[in-house]
Amino acid sequence: MFIDALVKEIKNKKCNIVVGLDPRIGSIPEGVKNKYFKECGHTIKAAAEAILEFNKEIIDNVYDFVPAVKPQIAFYEQYGVEGLRAYMKTCKYAKEKGMLVIGDIKRGDIGSTSVAYSNAHLGNIDIEGTIHETFAVDAITVNPYMGGDTLEEFMKDIKEKEKGMFVLVKTSNKGSGQLQDLEVNGKKIYEVVAGLVNDLSQQSIGKCGYASVGAVVGATYPEQSRTLRKLMKESYFLVPGYGAQGATVEDIVDCFNEDGLGAIINSSRGIIFAYQKSEKGYTAEKYGQAARQEALEMRDAINKGLETVEKCYW
Amino acid sequence: MFIDALVKEIKNKKCNIVVGLDPRIGSIPEGVKNKYFKECGHTIKAAAEAILEFNKEIIDNVYDFVPAVKPQIAFYEQYGVEGLRAYMKTCKYAKEKGMLVIGDIKRGDIGSTSVAYSNAHLGNIDIEGTIHETFAVDAITVNPYMGGDTLEEFMKDIKEKEKGMFVLVKTSNKGSGQLQDLEVNGKKIYEVVAGLVNDLSQQSIGKCGYASVGAVVGATYPEQSRTLRKLMKESYFLVPGYGAQGATVEDIVDCFNEDGLGAIINSSRGIIFAYQKSEKGYTAEKYGQAARQEALEMRDAINKGLETVEKCYW
Repeated sequence: MFIDALVKEIKNKKCNIVVGLDPRIGSIPEGVKNKYFKECGHTIKAAAEAILEFNKEIIDNVYDFVPAVKPQIAFYEQYGVEGLRAYMKTCKYAKEKGMLVIGDIKRGDIGSTSVAYSNAHLGNIDIEGTIHETFAVDAITVNPYMGGDTLEEFMKDIKEKEKGMFVLVKTSNKGSGQLQDLEVNGKKIYEVVAGLVNDLSQQSIGKCGYASVGAVVGATYPEQSRTLRKLMKESYFLVPGYGAQGATVEDIVDCFNEDGLGAIINSSRGIIFAYQKSEKGYTAEKYGQAARQEALEMRDAINKGLETVEKCYW
Repeated sequence: MFIDALVKEIKNKKCNIVVGLDPRIGSIPEGVKNKYFKECGHTIKAAAEAILEFNKEIIDNVYDFVPAVKPQIAFYEQYGVEGLRAYMKTCKYAKEKGMLVIGDIKRGDIGSTSVAYSNAHLGNIDIEGTIHETFAVDAITVNPYMGGDTLEEFMKDIKEKEKGMFVLVKTSNKGSGQLQDLEVNGKKIYEVVAGLVNDLSQQSIGKCGYASVGAVVGATYPEQSRTLRKLMKESYFLVPGYGAQGATVEDIVDCFNEDGLGAIINSSRGIIFAYQKSEKGYTAEKYGQAARQEALEMRDAINKGLETVEKCYW
């Protein structure tokens, strides 16, 4: 099962972080992109190839100690078909390097449409008896607004293809409370969604005791994450908001259970564009090493934080 | 503005319907797909080309009297990069035929990520000063769960590029009530979302008096649509659920305002795969004509329904 593979990697690597691959062409080192621009001009194809090269270098520098990557599909989608090809190749490359891939796609729709998304991003597509995989990653993020029936459509691939999903529960942005924090009969909307997630997680518990149905819980709301930790005991939390979005180690330790497991903390810009922090002596030429260094520091900071509160699995 | 173009087309054509282009390879006539399968085998490329040919035939048969098409991107995404190329080409073809294109993408994410989606589906992408359009359609559907700040990121392209969006308010599926119908201080969640939509719509009112920020309101919930009509006076409703999902003309007339405007009713399967209704004398060979006939009947049924309740703009 997805969750068993994830927890195994986390334990082996003693690392609770996921690197977000959110490439912006404007932030990719000149040396990488100009090679493609010189060859093909300022085309979408050139941008997509630069992104892929950039991603590979990041992956090469983190795969030995980071369990998973989380490409945000919007940053590829904006480069159209070529961008999505780069997304697909990025996912494939990370898998070849032994990493788990969480596609941050935040999809969700009614019945047959959710099935189509599941075909695209978790399972496969049957063309007159011939089976093809397209974007197939290990797990995806999904949006619950349309209701539990729309989430259930992903369960078939989660069970049969050993995949996972992380349902948006409490997101990291400033305006997340506008709907998610509203109170219904003494219960916040994010708690209602947590209930849906918990129900689905019971159908997908692995040998490790955790479930392949998890939740997105923003690091920027530590109080809420403490509540949510109790409501979804077997769900892994995918936690955005660390680093560039402002959350610290103290903010995320309560996303973990007492066994030192239960959360994987994402950082995107803070790691992949670390080379821009010239005050740390990083250079654009060695952007991969800068990313590695930042990821190592993030891993260590989180592990230290977990040790402080006696939440370690070692 | 998007909404002025939409209302103009609706008035010119005296037609309040949108044709949903949700292709399923299993439902595409043998004659269309076997041509490509013979040439390229049961490949994704062959499936994508069959889908594109199928869509073009549908568009050719409805563009003269239907104002807009609504391709559901999930049905293309499941065929990967090739499928998304077919989506892009379908959108382009419909535009060339003078139709408006509403991309049913249901995206939504935090700040810079929503901007990336907006670049992809409404605006364009700047590669070192060179501007490229990728999927750019006239309007999209978006998911509000993450909050109003995530919706606002689309407003720049809506204003500057004259585009539109339809925010999910009350969806047509059975489970839609699970979150959307919850009550907060006497207000349903869908009413709270309607308030967000109404705020944004005030920033995007066109000469026609309607706004380029609209709402998705399922035809399957007529009572709720009556309430919502009053809460979002200037918002156009994009109404799914008619036909194959079970809603009738009586269910949708209250989505319209007294001026006979304010809603566009979608049908997908019921129109594009109409040829399967052999009881009506349709054949697979003439699937385009079958779609045309069903769309004409739907247009007439809705117009008759609007006349009955004296909601006509003519």
